[in-house]
Amino acid sequence: MTKMTLNECLEYLNDNDGYLLLTHIRPDGDTLGSAAALCHILRRMGKVAFLYPNPQITDTYKPYVEPFMAPPGYEPVTILSVDLASENLFPEGFSGGRVGLCIDHHPTNSEYAENLLCMPEKASCGEIVLELGKLALGGIDKTEADLLYMAVSTDCGCFVYANTKPDTHRAAAELMEAGADYKALNKRLFRTSTYSRLKLEGLIYDSMQRFGPGECVSVVTVTLDMMAESGATENDCEDLASLAGRLAGNKVSVTIRQLEPKLCKVSLRSGEDFDSSAICALHGGGGHKMAAGCTIPSDPDETRDTIVWDILEAM
Amino acid sequence: MTKMTLNECLEYLNDNDGYLLLTHIRPDGDTLGSAAALCHILRRMGKVAFLYPNPQITDTYKPYVEPFMAPPGYEPVTILSVDLASENLFPEGFSGGRVGLCIDHHPTNSEYAENLLCMPEKASCGEIVLELGKLALGGIDKTEADLLYMAVSTDCGCFVYANTKPDTHRAAAELMEAGADYKALNKRLFRTSTYSRLKLEGLIYDSMQRFGPGECVSVVTVTLDMMAESGATENDCEDLASLAGRLAGNKVSVTIRQLEPKLCKVSLRSGEDFDSSAICALHGGGGHKMAAGCTIPSDPDETRDTIVWDILEAM
Repeated sequence: MTKMTLNECLEYLNDNDGYLLLTHIRPDGDTLGSAAALCHILRRMGKVAFLYPNPQITDTYKPYVEPFMAPPGYEPVTILSVDLASENLFPEGFSGGRVGLCIDHHPTNSEYAENLLCMPEKASCGEIVLELGKLALGGIDKTEADLLYMAVSTDCGCFVYANTKPDTHRAAAELMEAGADYKALNKRLFRTSTYSRLKLEGLIYDSMQRFGPGECVSVVTVTLDMMAESGATENDCEDLASLAGRLAGNKVSVTIRQLEPKLCKVSLRSGEDFDSSAICALHGGGGHKMAAGCTIPSDPDETRDTIVWDILEAM
Repeated sequence: MTKMTLNECLEYLNDNDGYLLLTHIRPDGDTLGSAAALCHILRRMGKVAFLYPNPQITDTYKPYVEPFMAPPGYEPVTILSVDLASENLFPEGFSGGRVGLCIDHHPTNSEYAENLLCMPEKASCGEIVLELGKLALGGIDKTEADLLYMAVSTDCGCFVYANTKPDTHRAAAELMEAGADYKALNKRLFRTSTYSRLKLEGLIYDSMQRFGPGECVSVVTVTLDMMAESGATENDCEDLASLAGRLAGNKVSVTIRQLEPKLCKVSLRSGEDFDSSAICALHGGGGHKMAAGCTIPSDPDETRDTIVWDILEAM
């Protein structure tokens, strides 16, 4: 494995051809926007380049990335991966061999590719591709600006998440000046929900309960009945685990998702002063201190009682 | 009325003293953050400066601005106003005389003050005060950075609204580097809701209905019963009219707020291809093409039927 600089990476892209770009499993705006923008940059450099047709792309992103999908039978020469930190995150159905170059911003990158350009100081891969585009072609065009604005803005929740940095804002400013239609993109990516999603959110807020000292433990439940009542599908369930954390005064938030009548997935979120992963470890799960998960073979009510008891014991 | 440049404005601030800073009625993050930051800058310039104790400051902003409130009996010499576009927006209870200098970014400023620094190219007043701070003292300190981040970020909905500009992002980057605790501020300002607000949102989403071709007219209702059931107060009702517009495929969104059993306030939001103000004008109301309002002397169900009929007729 060779670690590359931006300049070495550009040399590699110049020297090779016949590209297939991989995005990660359960693809988000950063992997899709960055890969599609890089694909467009490669084409402007005179290369043949396509995206691997990741089968899990959601409706939100499809219109932006479909024009870049590899046609059936495309035989790539060089495989690139974008925002893809380790081999267990390869997209579903991919078994196409060795990755020539990985472009990533995760400090945990497992170094599976022959060559790696990793810039963990960037909040998004989109910011790396922006630098590459400027280096390769002296600047990006409107299509790339749209795709990279999608990449940068989604990875920081429209500049609200803690991973947002001063340079994230500066990249956004640059992308807007390069023609990104940020008004339409912001509306579509951050201010639009399906009817089912809104109905489901309504039911979730209605189910919200509070426990513990100062009612600092909030619990929401997503039951199979609520999914049926709202008509929600997996497409509508993105980021549900963040809803309970919106509650003022909250220290630990619990999201219980019923998978089967007697099987629940539990997601915990907390501040720095509570160890969510220790609670989840009690039930064979794990994660990080501020975000962890586990699975409990009970119905939602029993699951709630169990987890809330564990949390109050640990406080 | 004299229009001032940034430099002339600074000269004015240097030449005068004994400041009282006015914020506008129903104060938001921009008027409060900008005024409090300017107050702090003035004090660092060696001046006596206080904020007018605006009685409508909500709990979200109180902790940030209370340290700057004028004590009872404070007798100002020079009155400033910040983000306050016209005299009918003066804060409740103010009758203290002529405003010496107004600092604003609204192109509609009515020029009521003796002197005016108006920069309509700025998305927020916070960006003007940032420029003033740099000019006056060579830079801003952490307190001012926090207050100005609050001002800048709230006026563009954390960089999601259409008024966001490349320079808004650059101002945010600068404020973060000057020490703004953007993580805590983002969490408090954009990711925290009261229990009552979340319960009310749940009831609102549950009440959502769709009408018309492609179900492009969405209607939500906020009844007196829903207010009672959720325990919501006026503090919890900010920006309710934007919720219905989140629905995918939406062209016109209607928010009906029951004020009395037989009196409803109607808020319309639409895209550029539908004239909301024309519909509201039918009922003695008005506003802009994309955002308008009126009041109808009926119960929520009748109000909905009336307005939806008017909208479908106009389509």
